[in-house]
Order: sequence, then C-alpha cells, then structure tokens
Amino acid sequence: MKRVIFLTNDDSYLSKGFRAAVNLAREFGDVIAIAPERVQSGMSQAITINQPLFIRQVEKSEGVTIYAFSGTPVDCAKVAFDHIFREQKIDLVLSGINHGSNAAINVMYSGTMGAAIEGSLYGIPSIGLSLDDHAPDADFEGAVEAGRKIISDVLNAADNLPRPLCLNVNVPRIPASEIRGIRLCRQTRGFWREEFYERQDPNGRDYYWLTGAFQNSEPEAEDSDEWALAHNYVSVVPVQVDMTDYNMLTKLNGVIK
Amino acid sequence: MKRVIFLTNDDSYLSKGFRAAVNLAREFGDVIAIAPERVQSGMSQAITINQPLFIRQVEKSEGVTIYAFSGTPVDCAKVAFDHIFREQKIDLVLSGINHGSNAAINVMYSGTMGAAIEGSLYGIPSIGLSLDDHAPDADFEGAVEAGRKIISDVLNAADNLPRPLCLNVNVPRIPASEIRGIRLCRQTRGFWREEFYERQDPNGRDYYWLTGAFQNSEPEAEDSDEWALAHNYVSVVPVQVDMTDYNMLTKLNGVIK
Repeated sequence: MKRVIFLTNDDSYLSKGFRAAVNLAREFGDVIAIAPERVQSGMSQAITINQPLFIRQVEKSEGVTIYAFSGTPVDCAKVAFDHIFREQKIDLVLSGINHGSNAAINVMYSGTMGAAIEGSLYGIPSIGLSLDDHAPDADFEGAVEAGRKIISDVLNAADNLPRPLCLNVNVPRIPASEIRGIRLCRQTRGFWREEFYERQDPNGRDYYWLTGAFQNSEPEAEDSDEWALAHNYVSVVPVQVDMTDYNMLTKLNGVIK
Repeated sequence: MKRVIFLTNDDSYLSKGFRAAVNLAREFGDVIAIAPERVQSGMSQAITINQPLFIRQVEKSEGVTIYAFSGTPVDCAKVAFDHIFREQKIDLVLSGINHGSNAAINVMYSGTMGAAIEGSLYGIPSIGLSLDDHAPDADFEGAVEAGRKIISDVLNAADNLPRPLCLNVNVPRIPASEIRGIRLCRQTRGFWREEFYERQDPNGRDYYWLTGAFQNSEPEAEDSDEWALAHNYVSVVPVQVDMTDYNMLTKLNGVIK
C-alpha cells in the first residue's frame, strides 16, 4: 500500500525549502500538504482563535495535493488532521525544510517545529527538518540527503516506537559532502538575548525591530544539538510536550503552601 | 528597598484580568508593565521577526507605569528586559491574570505562559496566573487571593530557589470561599481535538473557524493540574523549557543511524 506523507512548514508554500521537501517526500509516497499562505516564522505553537481562516488549493498533480492556508503552522496541522484529511491514513508528517536552524531553544519559537509537534499529538510520526541557513536561495542538498536517511529510518521503525514521536532535525550550513554524519542529541541549554533597532517611521513615530543572538550556556556539551551542528553533524533531538520542571517540583515542597 | 513587579499578559492591557493583576502586584511594590495593545490569546512563544513594533505609554501614576506594545506577549517580555527596563532590577514577573485556564498542554499554546516562560529565561522568578473563565467580566477574587499567597511565598523563597523559575498557576471558576487550597502538580497529559466551523463569507468564499475541546488522557491522576482544578484546588506547575524526549532518545539508539 502506498504511503502518504503530510507536509507543512512556516516559510509558506512558496519557499524553496518547501519545494525541496515536496520532492523529497515524493520519493516515499503520495504527498498531501497544507502550508501557510504567508511567512509564519517565529510563530511557535500559536493558534488562531479570534479570526476566520481561508484555504485554497494551489497544486494538484500526480501524487501531490497542496493547499495554502491563511493560519499559523499549527492551524495547518489542525485543519489537516481534524478536518480536511480527517479520514486519510497518514504515515509521516514532515515540516520544513526550514530556512534557518531550529536547534536548542529555537524549538520553542519555531513555527516549523510547532507544526511538527502538533502532528505528533495526532499519533503520526513527525519530523521537523531545518537547515542552518536563512537565505531564500539556500542550498538544501545536505538537508535533503539527511532527511532521506532519517525519514527512511523512521518509517522502517515506526511500528516499534511509542507515540507521540517527534524529531527536531537540524542540518549544518556546509556542502553535503562535508557532513560527518547524524547524531542523536539533547536540546542545548541556552536562551536568546535581543537587540532592538530603534527607528522612526515617516510620521515620526518610534518603532522597534527585534534582532538577537543565541547565548549557548554549554558550548562544550558533546551531547547537545548545537555542538553537533558546530562540528558538521546533523542533529536529531526527539521532542516531547511535558514542560513540568520536575526538579523544581521537589524544591517547591514546603515553599508553596 | 522597594520591590518592582513586571506585568504582562495576552488579553491586552485593557482586560479586566490585567487590571486585577495591577492592583494585586501593587500590594508588593512598584508596578512596571508592557502589555499587548490588542488581544494575543493563543500566541504561544511567538515572536515578531518580520515587522516593526510600536510602543506607547498608556498609564503613569504613583508606582504604576504601563506601556502598550504592538507585539506578542513574548515580544513584550523581550523589549522590557532587553531594552526599555534593561537597567531596572525586577523582583518578579507576573503574567495575567488570564481569562481562561492554561492548565495541561495549554501551557504550550498560551501567550500568557509564553511571556512568563520568557521572563524566567532572564533569571527573574515568573508566575503565569490564569482563571478558568473566559468571560470578559469574570470574577477574579479567587485568582487574586491565590495569587497573593503564591507571590508572597515565591518572593520569600526566591533567594533559595534555582533559576529559571517559572510557575503555571491556574484557579478554578468557583467562588473564592469554595477554593480548597493550593496544590503542587505536574502537567496533565492530553491534547486538543478541534472542530472547524465551516461558513461562507459575503463573497461566497469558504472560511473556517477553529474550536475544540481538551482531551484529558488521565482524568484520575491526582498529581495532575487538571485533577486539581476539577476538585476545586488551585494548581501550581513549575515549568521548564528543555523539550528533549529523553525516553525516546534511548529508544532511538540504533534506529537513527
């Protein structure tokens, strides 16, 4: 029986990385996709509560059906699995290929990972695939090669792995031939610190533009995803959604009464 | 030395819950606030990358300074701690009081919790405070009472607790006098399943409106936050940002090569 791969992303259905994902997924089966109408980078797990959402089919060819949706990446996943493709058996969710790394704490801000996480909550093995290069014309060859291997491994092992199953895969910005391999990792500890560009609009109103840099709290940690990327490996971090701080829970005994 | 409490939320600076938080925080010291200009519910950890952001002061009175910001709740936290109040010592972040529960997996979709989590990443003890009632004119008395106790406990113990320190506090929708106490909990396992209302706009275009219901995977778990709320307790879940699925990491050995 032919496999069905669901695609989405956060850079919109028009991005180069999305097209690379369509072609990659096509090697494994039929492709169905609902991707954002417009760029939704940094949208995290956001959902659209207070507005109507519009959908339109933008491509229908042999084995490929693509819709553009006016919502967030998570909205795309929800409308797919709870409505449009509700009756469809789906073997894999592939979100990406993202223009830009989603390693470390980026997993939390990323719309691409938001959609991958959401997919996993529907019991479907989900992969967020990202390349550490924001350029619109980035070279996705290394990401496609890594993605091909990891998709294959996941599809082969899916029956023997528990759910939810979600992988955050990041690929370094180097020629495919220089990639040293694939490493299972944990999420690097660290956070972003921002700078705000301050400017004035034509009417004299001040405005801010957010920009920032990731602060790695443990650059020497060889089991972290940032270390893998910095050393020319593809990083694979399995992701789950229980955010409870169990260590703190113990420490709060007797403090919160 | 006088304490300084930073406030934000996701229902905008005009919400009743925000005003309740201002009055509550005022009991503990000076209040500085940057809250969204417009409603930002469901915005999760979203950040604004591709647009300029506007800020304006909307209140300045004895011990209270409030700005409205055009960004997401996380943008509010970032512009506060990396720019506007960069030099200011802040003793506590209070995000809320939210109109609606952020228990269980809602922690991941919530803009209120997004801002609280972001605050904790700046090393400031952070509390997201939510009432299980979406009504614009909800009765916040129970939430204020619970918040007062928990803020007091956190401020007293802050020097002896590690960072990041972030609490997801949820209050049941019952009269304050019927609240049975405060319980330390873990995040309930579960997920949302959506229904999409399908309608047509005046031009005949189909549109969707997202609505859904939380599916509790473990309604009998007495250590879960949903159980606490259902049994008239205030729930307190400490939250952290490492989303690595460590169990899966072990299982993937030999699967991802």
